[in-house]
Amino acid sequence: MPRPDHLQFGALVHGSGGHIAGWRHPRANPDGELDIDFHVRLARLLEDAGFTALFVADVVAVWGHQLDSLHRTTRADYLEPITLLAALAPQTSRIGLVATATTSYNEPYNLARKFASLDHISGGRAGWNVVTSVVPLEAANFGRAEHFGHAERYARAAEFVDVVKGLWDSNADGALIRDKASGVYIDPARRFHLDHRGEHFTVAGPLNLARPPQGHPVLFQAGASPTGRAFAARVGEVIFTAPVSVAEAVDYRTRLDADVTAAGRDPGDVRVWPILTPIVADTDAEAAEILAELGSLIHDDVLRRLVQDNFGDEDFSDLDLDEPLPDFGTATNRSQSRRAGLLALARGEQLTLRQLALRFSARADTVGAATTVADRIAAVWATGAVDGFNVSFPYLPEQAERFTAEVLPILADRGLFRPPTGTTLREQLGLERAA
Amino acid sequence: MPRPDHLQFGALVHGSGGHIAGWRHPRANPDGELDIDFHVRLARLLEDAGFTALFVADVVAVWGHQLDSLHRTTRADYLEPITLLAALAPQTSRIGLVATATTSYNEPYNLARKFASLDHISGGRAGWNVVTSVVPLEAANFGRAEHFGHAERYARAAEFVDVVKGLWDSNADGALIRDKASGVYIDPARRFHLDHRGEHFTVAGPLNLARPPQGHPVLFQAGASPTGRAFAARVGEVIFTAPVSVAEAVDYRTRLDADVTAAGRDPGDVRVWPILTPIVADTDAEAAEILAELGSLIHDDVLRRLVQDNFGDEDFSDLDLDEPLPDFGTATNRSQSRRAGLLALARGEQLTLRQLALRFSARADTVGAATTVADRIAAVWATGAVDGFNVSFPYLPEQAERFTAEVLPILADRGLFRPPTGTTLREQLGLERAA
Repeated sequence: MPRPDHLQFGALVHGSGGHIAGWRHPRANPDGELDIDFHVRLARLLEDAGFTALFVADVVAVWGHQLDSLHRTTRADYLEPITLLAALAPQTSRIGLVATATTSYNEPYNLARKFASLDHISGGRAGWNVVTSVVPLEAANFGRAEHFGHAERYARAAEFVDVVKGLWDSNADGALIRDKASGVYIDPARRFHLDHRGEHFTVAGPLNLARPPQGHPVLFQAGASPTGRAFAARVGEVIFTAPVSVAEAVDYRTRLDADVTAAGRDPGDVRVWPILTPIVADTDAEAAEILAELGSLIHDDVLRRLVQDNFGDEDFSDLDLDEPLPDFGTATNRSQSRRAGLLALARGEQLTLRQLALRFSARADTVGAATTVADRIAAVWATGAVDGFNVSFPYLPEQAERFTAEVLPILADRGLFRPPTGTTLREQLGLERAA
Repeated sequence: MPRPDHLQFGALVHGSGGHIAGWRHPRANPDGELDIDFHVRLARLLEDAGFTALFVADVVAVWGHQLDSLHRTTRADYLEPITLLAALAPQTSRIGLVATATTSYNEPYNLARKFASLDHISGGRAGWNVVTSVVPLEAANFGRAEHFGHAERYARAAEFVDVVKGLWDSNADGALIRDKASGVYIDPARRFHLDHRGEHFTVAGPLNLARPPQGHPVLFQAGASPTGRAFAARVGEVIFTAPVSVAEAVDYRTRLDADVTAAGRDPGDVRVWPILTPIVADTDAEAAEILAELGSLIHDDVLRRLVQDNFGDEDFSDLDLDEPLPDFGTATNRSQSRRAGLLALARGEQLTLRQLALRFSARADTVGAATTVADRIAAVWATGAVDGFNVSFPYLPEQAERFTAEVLPILADRGLFRPPTGTTLREQLGLERAA
């Protein structure tokens, strides 16, 4: 199917906002994360405004590498994504529901069931953001001293996804007969053993649930290392990327399309959604003030940790925040792409640790009056290299309210945006139903 | 806290009904299982009528030992319980939400999160029915040729429950500060590493989610073998049992109370809910006709399988349904208590295979006009040995409608039943919040 000819938007779900100090903003709701009514209101606001999907990130541990600074952030306390999205499903009617789940610390049978169940409950609106887990504290919650190695993580992930797809397909479309007269509930000719025997998993099947309404829930992926990119090209249907500048966008897409083609797939079957972290205010100056205010609300310990957590085993606790970053060596196993990017940024611009942390953590790449934000979105869209954006609102609910009320109407007036058509998430994305 | 002085009721959630041919009944909804709107309507009906809890059974495979007859039942196709109950949470306001989950094929960290999330989303209404998995097809979905042995299953379950409770407690009550001024989101003094290192699990913790509103979601258990009963006495707060006659009820409770005391707990902290499978009609004769009709709707292959699935490796496919059951030997590892019970029943009354299957599978122990059903419930309640019933409606929605509209008002008029008081499930059950 052709790529949608209008911009699409997903939204990261986090109760108080995506900025690490967003919950402290005077107009943020600090209690949002555990408040299901707040989540419902936000989901409906975004659905009504024409967002295509809600997206919930996840880590199977407190969300940092160490505990020292986490008590100052919302990243150590959040609802399990599939449980949260299941609760939102009957409270919404069209918006996609995309949960992150790791292939390193789950069993394929359990995860296949959960996403199939979410797809049935939501009438075909489920998506799975496939991750392999990189936060060290996660491994220790599952009996391991450290994560699987980089290559093994992705090999396991690839087999895991194959098994899950196989389980979704282990009941053919139309297998549910439910004919009272003959007494046949399921057509036995349309239900299959999977009998998968692989290097990491042995799974008999069949799945104990009819094929999901979408055939397969939509697969999201965000791999950025070379191995991760190859995996994304092989399985990703919507690719989350770091923010791309207008200058970078076409190169990124060209490379991705080549990777997708090399993996034997049609680049037309892949959507690209860079992350977008907007701050909308009445004027550009006022928006910049909000960004600065958010930066000032980050505690020094958190600033230091934000950079350190993307490095390896170095201890940053004695580093002066206002000195340039020391010259660290080459990458370790974890977070290779992030570490390299941070090092290049720090060296290229001779940033202090504080400046680097703010640059990296501020997570607001598009800051200004509504027209300014719309202009930047339009410029990236004009490259033809992206299909939409995955929006992380720095604090909530205000920024979601302003974005939907002020930015989307401008994009609609310019003919760049309209609410998606279609019932299932797959249809809204212009992706074929899995055969 | 004292045991509630009025009858309480839980309801098994299964879209078309609990009788194996219930979906074929002329007034059953055969499409109920995957229809979330149907589940919502049923949940609200039961909540409004004063039911204390919804309960979802589960098997991590198609729900039988072999596939030959499953296509004639609803037992091969159902939603994952936690996902289903999460969807029902915001659509209901008081009723408890109890999901079955196995300790054999999950990781404690994942399950602790899911039940804690369900408890937060529902405002303290979550319960966990702890099972260890006995259906052979389950093992094969998780890389094992067969289940863990009986003793190892329960040893693993005991450690699993300890870890889950430890994770729930790894954030103390009141840990969430969320104070914008000081920037402290979580009180670090109220969050703990678990650092569990046991025979089956090694889990660092802490859980990445605030302590559940109930402290601990309520633990349900239904173990019936000697090992299973010891486990239930150790961890169960609500015990599901097989139907008990008036004659058996006091003996059962006396034995359970002794087991609970031996496990170092107060018998006042345990509730007993035998299963109840009612058929309500205008007259006793009409109700008996419905039961016979349901029996006649069970295909011969299913009848045979119903008995065989509770035995071991014997093949029943060539047995004549209308001959007495052959003399099988002693129990194997699986389903010891069921097998022994069936053998005793068959031998004691010289039943044919068909008669045994109908007796066993009919699953309607309380059949009659509303007053007849109420009388039998009242008689068991009058023993003082039960706290309520876990109701499995043979076909839906009619039997739930009749039970709530006709039987509950009789029990209320007699002063035996009233809707539960309290906000959380634990409060409704009269159970202390976990310290």
